[in-house]
Amino acid sequence: MKIVDGGVTAVQGFLAASVAAGIKYKDRMDMALVYSKVPAIVAGVFTTNVVKAAPVKWDMAIIKECETAQAMVFNSGIANACTGKEGDTVNEAMAKAVADALNLKVEAVLTASTGVIGMPIPVDKATTGGKLLVENLTGDIEAGHNAAKAIMTTDTIPKEVAVEFTVSGKTVRLAGMSKGSGMIHPNMATMLAVVTTDVAITKELLQKALSEDVKDTFNMMSVDRDTSTNDTLIVLANGLANNAVIDSENEDYQAFCEALHFVNETLAKLIAGDGEGATKLFEAKVIGAKTKDEAALLSKAVITSNLVKAAIFGRDANWGRIICALGYAGVEFDPEKVDLYIESESGKLKLVENGLTADFSEEFATKILSDKEVTAICDMHQGEASATAWGCDLTYDYVKINGDYRS
Amino acid sequence: MKIVDGGVTAVQGFLAASVAAGIKYKDRMDMALVYSKVPAIVAGVFTTNVVKAAPVKWDMAIIKECETAQAMVFNSGIANACTGKEGDTVNEAMAKAVADALNLKVEAVLTASTGVIGMPIPVDKATTGGKLLVENLTGDIEAGHNAAKAIMTTDTIPKEVAVEFTVSGKTVRLAGMSKGSGMIHPNMATMLAVVTTDVAITKELLQKALSEDVKDTFNMMSVDRDTSTNDTLIVLANGLANNAVIDSENEDYQAFCEALHFVNETLAKLIAGDGEGATKLFEAKVIGAKTKDEAALLSKAVITSNLVKAAIFGRDANWGRIICALGYAGVEFDPEKVDLYIESESGKLKLVENGLTADFSEEFATKILSDKEVTAICDMHQGEASATAWGCDLTYDYVKINGDYRS
Repeated sequence: MKIVDGGVTAVQGFLAASVAAGIKYKDRMDMALVYSKVPAIVAGVFTTNVVKAAPVKWDMAIIKECETAQAMVFNSGIANACTGKEGDTVNEAMAKAVADALNLKVEAVLTASTGVIGMPIPVDKATTGGKLLVENLTGDIEAGHNAAKAIMTTDTIPKEVAVEFTVSGKTVRLAGMSKGSGMIHPNMATMLAVVTTDVAITKELLQKALSEDVKDTFNMMSVDRDTSTNDTLIVLANGLANNAVIDSENEDYQAFCEALHFVNETLAKLIAGDGEGATKLFEAKVIGAKTKDEAALLSKAVITSNLVKAAIFGRDANWGRIICALGYAGVEFDPEKVDLYIESESGKLKLVENGLTADFSEEFATKILSDKEVTAICDMHQGEASATAWGCDLTYDYVKINGDYRS
Repeated sequence: MKIVDGGVTAVQGFLAASVAAGIKYKDRMDMALVYSKVPAIVAGVFTTNVVKAAPVKWDMAIIKECETAQAMVFNSGIANACTGKEGDTVNEAMAKAVADALNLKVEAVLTASTGVIGMPIPVDKATTGGKLLVENLTGDIEAGHNAAKAIMTTDTIPKEVAVEFTVSGKTVRLAGMSKGSGMIHPNMATMLAVVTTDVAITKELLQKALSEDVKDTFNMMSVDRDTSTNDTLIVLANGLANNAVIDSENEDYQAFCEALHFVNETLAKLIAGDGEGATKLFEAKVIGAKTKDEAALLSKAVITSNLVKAAIFGRDANWGRIICALGYAGVEFDPEKVDLYIESESGKLKLVENGLTADFSEEFATKILSDKEVTAICDMHQGEASATAWGCDLTYDYVKINGDYRS
């Protein structure tokens, strides 16, 4: 597997477009379209929030009823959540504008929205934007890049990645783009993402691979513990790589899963590191846990603790807060067996040994915590299981962004 | 029931003292003692964190083994958590210094610590402080007030309250003091508190009343979702009111529970409103839920959401975030039935009707959100159950305080 240039359009048969439709933002691109020249097997995972946005309900029905889809239209600025029947109507109109222009059935077009909750999307802007998107479709790398930009809200960087790997002698590509910065919490994080691939695979296995992988990637990331109403992750597999169709959990399936995992993990880390106001990516790796589920609970408790996150922002090796977070994760363990390290490109430092402070250099700790990516490694010494979760620091800018977001 | 002046020493037979022992802070009081002239029936509830501080383990053993206790010694600055056997030794030495000076058995002295985790308490300072405390014991109102000050860490105000009520024709008093500002989350909140009363009651009923009441008071409050290693709430009932001993769940028991509830709720609200960096108390009242447990989950989801808390700080009626928080609380409901109001001393305003935006004045919303105490009322229209939770806004100062706390 190797990383290749670009995002969703790095995969053959996939085109993209973006436009400034004026949904809410002025003078910036705010709608995007990803399109496969041929029908693509489709799989998806969605928010667990009881309150689901109109596009989430729309996509869930498509994933349930349809084998394939061919396009996905996005808007940023307004989430189309808590908008009732009118919201459903606007959502369908947006899909239909794209479907008509592409000569597709409306149910071949997935939708995704992100932004303010409770505000209506102006239907004329959404449909005009939808038509314009189709006119602008191209397969350029740049088109994929601009689509990743158009779906940003409080994100500071567009998020995309593409890889190439081999399945039964054929070269296959898999790429993704995502957005997400605030209202980010596992199951799912608040984010929109689409993964494109030219692999040939059955719908059942595509969904299985996706559902399994999000447990270790998107569902292990949190910016603020707020599970959104709009989380959507879609994979479109158009089969143009012409490999023998993956229809069992064989070597080819493993190769595909590995590529999917890499792309999902990369996007998840990009989202966590670009959390609202964040200055750094904060990773918690729990090892030596009794079970994987327990390791996941423990690692997520660490990255979601406001106190830990504020200490990471302050470059303060306040390890007691990490041990405290482990302690309330809902997992039984012996605190007097825990070892704790911090690690970054500057090096690795043991802070805690057998539950007590290790003799560590505060200066070196501050140096490690000053890097852009910091990992806390918690060795529970209870078993063999491990898990990794991703978050970010809690900063003044998080408060600033969210104290005045709507206006 | 009426409110009376003072705190823990407003109850007959209870004395208090505070000293500057130099445990960690310089030039301020950092140890406190509450003492009953006669043995007091004792009950307690403690943190659910797997990692328990030395004083928590000490007190839990006393509550389990002993019918009565007579004193409780506090220190602020260092939490004596994650300090291993040495921590246990220092904790016992602190208790013993007080016990010896008071001519009590060591197990008559409860302990409580708050502050930095993982740092050792200097044993000489703790024992010298303990002896000095005994020398300074008095029953003045001021002594109780100063004790409430001495246990503060990042608290900005001391927290105390006292009430007087009648049990079987006798006048009874009940009073409490507490501290807590950060690392505050239900089960228990990070806080230390002691409630003194001169009621005569059995140990069994005292513990029962306490365990029941914390579900609706201290366990319904959160500043930052971080459950501490040191949470401790002790009630000491010395029986000096000379009422007929409360030994069944009769009218007298109800009168006692009512007073206990008032004191606990008052202290809980004082802690929430004085959350680290907070500018206001934020209350979430959920009504019309199916069950009380569900109402509690829903109200706690609202007050613990960072996004909601930041919006409250920004005086932004961003109701979508409240609906979103309800949606991920782990409770099934119909979003299209929810009504949402905000209320303060300035008035009451409906923001959401049947899950959709109500036609509300943004100006009036901002006025309500500018008050020092703000309530969000969520009517689920699913049943008859209700619950109230207390939190605060998320501010720049929370980040400032916690980005640089240890140093």
